[in-house]
Amino acid sequence: MTDTATHDHSHGDADSPHGYITDKDKYLNRMKRIEGQARGIHKMVEDEKYCIDILTQISALTSALEAVAVGLLDDHLRHCVVDAARLGGAEAEAKITEATQAIARLVR
Amino acid sequence: MTDTATHDHSHGDADSPHGYITDKDKYLNRMKRIEGQARGIHKMVEDEKYCIDILTQISALTSALEAVAVGLLDDHLRHCVVDAARLGGAEAEAKITEATQAIARLVR
Amino acid sequence: MTDTATHDHSHGDADSPHGYITDKDKYLNRMKRIEGQARGIHKMVEDEKYCIDILTQISALTSALEAVAVGLLDDHLRHCVVDAARLGGAEAEAKITEATQAIARLVR
Amino acid sequence: MTDTATHDHSHGDADSPHGYITDKDKYLNRMKRIEGQARGIHKMVEDEKYCIDILTQISALTSALEAVAVGLLDDHLRHCVVDAARLGGAEAEAKITEATQAIARLVR
Repeated sequence: MTDTATHDHSHGDADSPHGYITDKDKYLNRMKRIEGQARGIHKMVEDEKYCIDILTQISALTSALEAVAVGLLDDHLRHCVVDAARLGGAEAEAKITEATQAIARLVR
Repeated sequence: MTDTATHDHSHGDADSPHGYITDKDKYLNRMKRIEGQARGIHKMVEDEKYCIDILTQISALTSALEAVAVGLLDDHLRHCVVDAARLGGAEAEAKITEATQAIARLVR
Repeated sequence: MTDTATHDHSHGDADSPHGYITDKDKYLNRMKRIEGQARGIHKMVEDEKYCIDILTQISALTSALEAVAVGLLDDHLRHCVVDAARLGGAEAEAKITEATQAIARLVR
Repeated sequence: MTDTATHDHSHGDADSPHGYITDKDKYLNRMKRIEGQARGIHKMVEDEKYCIDILTQISALTSALEAVAVGLLDDHLRHCVVDAARLGGAEAEAKITEATQAIARLVR
């Protein structure tokens, strides 16, 4: 009788503040793998592996992080920025400025 | 005799297809400076200047280019993407995808 | 009963193949912090924190990784490459080529 | 009788202070091309080409500059740093520090 269906979502419900939920599992998996890569590099230093091999793993980890960042930025543009654009005005301007600053930090 | 005033705009008229005209002179000046930096580096190689000093100039030039790229991207988001967002649909989606791909190339 | 003390060195003994031991603890601490940052970003995605804030943390993590990479490269040049340079010949050439390739991957 | 031949070299002679002469023409050609790319981007802004197309050209120019930088760094390691390493002492240390700082600026 009691319908609990509307509460039967482990995450990504209507309360979700930033709604990039469609890809959430993808990002969680990627971050899980990135954590593993960071632990692997720690272990390589611990075991005093060859420096160049550690650098190769750091490059791989950096690339993985950049891919996450670009993906999040895409989602952000697609949702937050597009929503703000439809409303227009100062809010839209502020969202774009914020996105550009994030891009500038990534590009450096 | 004939009034040529309506043709007397060197740039940035209503026919301008991509309308980032407000900042056009800023970008032209920056690109002018960047061309000068590139010529300067060529000259440094020609004169066999100290390698590390050439690398410093290359880093400066790369930073200047990144600043132009981030500025253009900001303008692009502010105009093309926002306009597309207001129209919505496939056009908006395509514009965001295109912008993200440009960001990915800059971030690498 | 038997004294195993000579094997009771957790790291950095004379058998250490790549001898960047002076800074080993510094690198281990940095990598520990980087692992923490990666876990923090995972948690931010889990909690659906604001996208731009996640991007800020990704930029910080990338910078921390780059600092580790540049530090390792410095150590590598200072030890492996300098040693090879003293021996000279094909070995020195190969070490430089290897170092340059690692730098190219970092610079991209 | 008078032999001026030994002075008749426009560049790359024994007086050359930084002796990366074997590849000098390669670098001059690359920098020439880079100057052309910079002029092309200036022209694209002048003509108000599509923003994303300009960004693509900026990415290409940045990659070309990075390739020059990595090449110069390789030459620098192969000559200046190796020479300093053979002499050893404070000079060698200083050369490595200088090279690492240049790498850090490129990696950022």
